[in-house]
Amino acid sequence: MIGVVGLNYWGPNLARNFAELGALSWICDLDEERLAKATARHPSAAATTEYAELLASDVEGVVIATPVPTHYALAKQALEAGKHVLVEKPPAMRAAEIDELVGIAAERDLVLMPGHLLLYHPGIRKLKQLIDDGELGDVLCVYGNRQNLGIVRTNENALWSLGVHDLSVMLYLLDEEPEQCVAHGRDFLTEGVEDVVFCYLRFPSGKIAHMHLSWLDPHKMRRITVVGREKMVVFDDMELERKVTIYEKAPWKRTDSYGEWQTRSGDISIPKIPTDEPLKLECQEFLRLIAGEGDRRKVAEDGARVVRALDRLTESLRG
Amino acid sequence: MIGVVGLNYWGPNLARNFAELGALSWICDLDEERLAKATARHPSAAATTEYAELLASDVEGVVIATPVPTHYALAKQALEAGKHVLVEKPPAMRAAEIDELVGIAAERDLVLMPGHLLLYHPGIRKLKQLIDDGELGDVLCVYGNRQNLGIVRTNENALWSLGVHDLSVMLYLLDEEPEQCVAHGRDFLTEGVEDVVFCYLRFPSGKIAHMHLSWLDPHKMRRITVVGREKMVVFDDMELERKVTIYEKAPWKRTDSYGEWQTRSGDISIPKIPTDEPLKLECQEFLRLIAGEGDRRKVAEDGARVVRALDRLTESLRG
Amino acid sequence: MIGVVGLNYWGPNLARNFAELGALSWICDLDEERLAKATARHPSAAATTEYAELLASDVEGVVIATPVPTHYALAKQALEAGKHVLVEKPPAMRAAEIDELVGIAAERDLVLMPGHLLLYHPGIRKLKQLIDDGELGDVLCVYGNRQNLGIVRTNENALWSLGVHDLSVMLYLLDEEPEQCVAHGRDFLTEGVEDVVFCYLRFPSGKIAHMHLSWLDPHKMRRITVVGREKMVVFDDMELERKVTIYEKAPWKRTDSYGEWQTRSGDISIPKIPTDEPLKLECQEFLRLIAGEGDRRKVAEDGARVVRALDRLTESLRG
Amino acid sequence: MIGVVGLNYWGPNLARNFAELGALSWICDLDEERLAKATARHPSAAATTEYAELLASDVEGVVIATPVPTHYALAKQALEAGKHVLVEKPPAMRAAEIDELVGIAAERDLVLMPGHLLLYHPGIRKLKQLIDDGELGDVLCVYGNRQNLGIVRTNENALWSLGVHDLSVMLYLLDEEPEQCVAHGRDFLTEGVEDVVFCYLRFPSGKIAHMHLSWLDPHKMRRITVVGREKMVVFDDMELERKVTIYEKAPWKRTDSYGEWQTRSGDISIPKIPTDEPLKLECQEFLRLIAGEGDRRKVAEDGARVVRALDRLTESLRG
Repeated sequence: MIGVVGLNYWGPNLARNFAELGALSWICDLDEERLAKATARHPSAAATTEYAELLASDVEGVVIATPVPTHYALAKQALEAGKHVLVEKPPAMRAAEIDELVGIAAERDLVLMPGHLLLYHPGIRKLKQLIDDGELGDVLCVYGNRQNLGIVRTNENALWSLGVHDLSVMLYLLDEEPEQCVAHGRDFLTEGVEDVVFCYLRFPSGKIAHMHLSWLDPHKMRRITVVGREKMVVFDDMELERKVTIYEKAPWKRTDSYGEWQTRSGDISIPKIPTDEPLKLECQEFLRLIAGEGDRRKVAEDGARVVRALDRLTESLRG
Repeated sequence: MIGVVGLNYWGPNLARNFAELGALSWICDLDEERLAKATARHPSAAATTEYAELLASDVEGVVIATPVPTHYALAKQALEAGKHVLVEKPPAMRAAEIDELVGIAAERDLVLMPGHLLLYHPGIRKLKQLIDDGELGDVLCVYGNRQNLGIVRTNENALWSLGVHDLSVMLYLLDEEPEQCVAHGRDFLTEGVEDVVFCYLRFPSGKIAHMHLSWLDPHKMRRITVVGREKMVVFDDMELERKVTIYEKAPWKRTDSYGEWQTRSGDISIPKIPTDEPLKLECQEFLRLIAGEGDRRKVAEDGARVVRALDRLTESLRG
Repeated sequence: MIGVVGLNYWGPNLARNFAELGALSWICDLDEERLAKATARHPSAAATTEYAELLASDVEGVVIATPVPTHYALAKQALEAGKHVLVEKPPAMRAAEIDELVGIAAERDLVLMPGHLLLYHPGIRKLKQLIDDGELGDVLCVYGNRQNLGIVRTNENALWSLGVHDLSVMLYLLDEEPEQCVAHGRDFLTEGVEDVVFCYLRFPSGKIAHMHLSWLDPHKMRRITVVGREKMVVFDDMELERKVTIYEKAPWKRTDSYGEWQTRSGDISIPKIPTDEPLKLECQEFLRLIAGEGDRRKVAEDGARVVRALDRLTESLRG
Repeated sequence: MIGVVGLNYWGPNLARNFAELGALSWICDLDEERLAKATARHPSAAATTEYAELLASDVEGVVIATPVPTHYALAKQALEAGKHVLVEKPPAMRAAEIDELVGIAAERDLVLMPGHLLLYHPGIRKLKQLIDDGELGDVLCVYGNRQNLGIVRTNENALWSLGVHDLSVMLYLLDEEPEQCVAHGRDFLTEGVEDVVFCYLRFPSGKIAHMHLSWLDPHKMRRITVVGREKMVVFDDMELERKVTIYEKAPWKRTDSYGEWQTRSGDISIPKIPTDEPLKLECQEFLRLIAGEGDRRKVAEDGARVVRALDRLTESLRG
């Protein structure tokens, strides 16, 4: 059974999904009013303002949806209490912290799963499948555009607030640790909090990735583009019915000319993407991992890879 | 009167425009066949395969549309022969070379005008006017997207082939020399010739700029976006009738919350842009500069600024 | 105070809105389960399965959200019981019926308001204002596209189910009774229930209108276009942020040619449209009319005009 | 060999194409200046201002590109002179005239081919193939949108000037003579010349068709939509690279509900369409028909079907 801690913004959604999956047994928040409100919706769940009480209970898994700066400490306590952990993104703010959490989880064979919602989006799954099936040919470049979305944060910059989404997806798609992480940007609105950030990553295989992250933009974009040597594919989360578009577009060397390359354009296809709710799929995955299915080590390690890249990008951005 | 040298790709367009303006008196190309073809169109223009003959003639201005690596040398000869020069972009491939050319032109008070066609596009003029009139408020960020366009070059990378367009526009709009020039990218198709390049520039005023340049992309884009503190504006050259879109979109600080910023969206307007042909306007500008109108020093210096930035970006890309 | 009858689909939304306006005092439905569910949400409202009981109560206004075929009879009873009436669209299915209802309402000076939701959409209000202010010049033609939307009905054809929306808007915008009403279409899925319908209307002023209504279409459209002699304007309800677009596009006679007309294209503007919820505005309007504000006779007569046109179009369609 | 008569607007394109196919031997125009200009381009073709001279020559085929009102008489003379005829659209303005031409052509076994350019567009060919291969299932409805395009004519209304394109395509796709032809519209700019026209057609098979034709419109559209029972397909001639889009969108009856229909949405595909020039294909077709390939009777009869439908629609429009 599952306990959810932090019931302010996203926590209630997690609680609702675990309740619908018949797995919610505890809810926890420091704020009594929020707790009361959540109790009204989930009367059968035990409620507490004491995190320690939750950890002392018989819940198997703890779901952490508290403010970002508390993620690491709360996750560590939960793991040390022998609980499986699903922790909202980012699970930690420093590479050292996430590596420590991964170490504890590995030692005790516990689940440490970051809440990278987009990884459970059927459209992103389609991209992963296209890549893994070799449909795109060698992947050369992946890039994300996340612009003009959401509330401008004053305590979290665009890299951590927006970039964590694209980065988790791009590392999931490429399944590789970047060897080069460069970031540039500026803090136009709040001093010290970058609102426009550009990131460049290079991988040992030679692949490259890029992110354009911005709160200040006329274009509303949530888009990930994958350039393969044989096909290219775009995931556009602003589209209602055309989430994934596959382009038979590829460079080819003209035999009749002086070795010049051209771009060949062919069919375009827009496969029907299932409308399954990503959050439900994410919650099911956590339950499956707890039940011993899937590769819990890889899930934890993949999560750590994202934090390490964020940490290095932050260093580059500040440097 | 004007002489045009180099009649392979772009040269014939320049010759035609100067002819229509009644100013074409010489044409020159090493290739006799090309020269014959151009002569058929411009029977009243003198024709030669000898550049020296052109320089020895009484033409006032020389228009150089030869292959890029020859630009600097031919421009230098023309200036030294006392001719005004319009030279296709880029006018030189090294900062030292362009600075030398600017020096010669200044010394002899000659026109040295680079053929930055986009600067004469009525849509780009509109952007410049909006910025200079203060319509956008302080400009914070400018960025260009030039993706999936044209023939992939094997002897010129995406930075020099595609980026020169956006860079000339962005420096024209901001009218400032960048203090930081960083470029990243990769050569996927032809070794040593980058086909995907990302550039980041930072200016002394704090403004930033970015370019996404790529021959390998599913999206066909030719777009320049300007983010001002009060309005944002987009120039989209792939649009037929909506070249410029102005967004009343700006960050504002909510007074009722904890100092958080939000994005306020207002009216959108798409002004009618005149359909004047940029090349004709460019040719007219050259004639005007020769006639003593306008600021020929600034034109030369602006051109040099573009080459210097390209040179620094190249260094960063290779480094 | 207000009583809402019919709590199946749309009724609960009406109940909620009147409750939020502090005006809901009765709820009524034949189905006890539905009634119980609504009572849980509105515990302070009296509940009954007997319409007669509602009519015998002291409610001032009755809101009818029952199945379409019952609208006329229930509205008639309510008016005869001296109640003001807001009745979902269409308020009746025959011209004779609506004329009778309008007569009763007029005689007793009661409100008879049809629930034409779109008339309260801020985007449609903007169109009306542009027309009434003369911004568009003489209006020549209005047409609606409502395609590929909603569930295909088996008991109501595309004209009554989809067309009622566009027709109410077009008659509201033109404020004129059509002199010619022609409809064509076919019943591809359910015999006798047209799923593709085209309607043409002509008005005494010479204006024309057209509707393309279809459940079988690849394009998802909810659009109303107004062609004025000086400007044209489009209301597109599928757009999130660009609901209304104004085109400075108009025919003009070239003076230099043989009296030929051309289309002149100018600026395009997309005004910011308030995001006020139309249903709330509709409910407020009903309360205002009850309170004696506005022109209740015109509201009833406008509603009748829509039913009369639907009746004539139906005759044409069948004939 | 081929003679082209009428060298004002479209004629020169026909002449150029036949010249490129090595088949142009005569050119003819009443205007000496035009004739001289065409002679300069086609010096090897015989030139005359006398149509009789052309007819008396040994040309096998005559291509008529003169003003519309002259088409019938010139085509008749050519057929009577034993020449094969390619005549610009519409080949005649009355049903009786085209039937007469078809009769003469049939009697003498001559080619009578109307210049319906769109029928040779690879995108329209794709639609035809999809329909004939049964890919779309039963075709239910076809409709065309041709709005805001071209110069407003003062001597030809939107039906004849714009509608002839869509009508030729729709009759080609359905290959059936309509049993019902209804048209409505108005003449806003020039008295007696309708600039906005709506047409409805019904076929013996139960299929229906519709055209929305207008010079006064904010939307620039050139689009033909085919609704099949299993798939839907759109030809959009305003798109550069996405001319044809196929939607796996179809109605289906839910088994779990009360016989209600729903729309099922599946994959979307945008096949690569060859960029062959339609005019060249049209000219080649004429040469092939002359050479005895293809079914010349059907080509003439198909052309007549279009004129008959235009004639009936005109009667409805005026009636």
